[in-house]
Amino acid sequence: MTITITAFERSPDRGRGLARDMRVRWALEEVGQPYDVRLVSFEAMKQPAHLALQPFGQIPTYEDGDLALFESGAIVLHIAEHYQGLLPDDPNARARATAWLFAAVCTMEPVIVDRETARFEEGKESWYEEHLAHVERRIRKRLGELSARLGDADWLDGTFSAGDLQMISVLLRLEGSALLAEYPNLCAYIARGQARPAYKRAFEAQKAVFVALSAGER
Amino acid sequence: MTITITAFERSPDRGRGLARDMRVRWALEEVGQPYDVRLVSFEAMKQPAHLALQPFGQIPTYEDGDLALFESGAIVLHIAEHYQGLLPDDPNARARATAWLFAAVCTMEPVIVDRETARFEEGKESWYEEHLAHVERRIRKRLGELSARLGDADWLDGTFSAGDLQMISVLLRLEGSALLAEYPNLCAYIARGQARPAYKRAFEAQKAVFVALSAGER
Repeated sequence: MTITITAFERSPDRGRGLARDMRVRWALEEVGQPYDVRLVSFEAMKQPAHLALQPFGQIPTYEDGDLALFESGAIVLHIAEHYQGLLPDDPNARARATAWLFAAVCTMEPVIVDRETARFEEGKESWYEEHLAHVERRIRKRLGELSARLGDADWLDGTFSAGDLQMISVLLRLEGSALLAEYPNLCAYIARGQARPAYKRAFEAQKAVFVALSAGER
Repeated sequence: MTITITAFERSPDRGRGLARDMRVRWALEEVGQPYDVRLVSFEAMKQPAHLALQPFGQIPTYEDGDLALFESGAIVLHIAEHYQGLLPDDPNARARATAWLFAAVCTMEPVIVDRETARFEEGKESWYEEHLAHVERRIRKRLGELSARLGDADWLDGTFSAGDLQMISVLLRLEGSALLAEYPNLCAYIARGQARPAYKRAFEAQKAVFVALSAGER
């Protein structure tokens, strides 16, 4: 039985690895599990067949035999708990790595997503720049706290874990922004994640979807 | 060894049970574990001793012997995984309940928190009402999707789980708002959660902190 995940047929990020299927691909590469990908169009994402798998009409989903899961945070944690390679053996260290996974998707990601949401949905409002200043202040606060905790360590708590995988994936949403450049240790942390062979394989796999799509268009 | 959690010395919600220690209290009451509470002032939350436990200067934290955890999502999941009462026995059903826990704190909560953040931090801006309309549109979209999935079921996936505990806690942030009233099945779902004896015990315990504080003031 092969694991099957879903991904965007046409990812809005144009193959930059920012869609959340990338996190699941990266996790599966880290633990060495093969997987199939079913591409879903924006139209199909709102249809009953997909909503049965994902009540909010999003990707990714994860199917393995009788099990169907949604929420990339839950999927990555499920993979980490069932295969070796993404959580330490010591029970307390496992729980702490899980706390970092939650910190990534609950504390860091929402303020970062707000910047994208503001641009897409409120970018044409006359007050957009003023609102953006508030959003960026909130992002800076969290980046500063994370930077202070990481210090000069390689990873957030000992060895690389599912917590680092999620945190680096979240920070990558700011790649190329001036915000991130203010925190050199966070930039180096992201680069360490991107240098992992499993990250590279996952990145190339998601990019291939975009390249194949582009090749079929003129 | 008794479990110790932290909570606000002066909760901004004035004992309404909306601070995130409530979720941990509720979880501990559901599984029947006693706990101690250490109250933390806003000043102490930003000091090194607390930041060592919680890198973002928030509550709650969770200490049990050698283990120290932060992030209420991670703490509730840890409690659910270690004691009986908040996750089904079947492994697939456990994974699905965990997915709902993530959906609560990653998909529903950020759009709901944005409404509070906008009020506190951007409420005096001339464009606040216009921004609020965008925020409330995003909340309605998610509430509609959740309402459609819940239908007339009692709980999100079979028996009451840590996923319901988190989802109801998140929805309670909208209590009394016109937004929630548009979805009678979600209102009934919240009421079922609030009717649980464990919820009531947890609610009274957090309220007692506020009442004791008020009694000491004139």
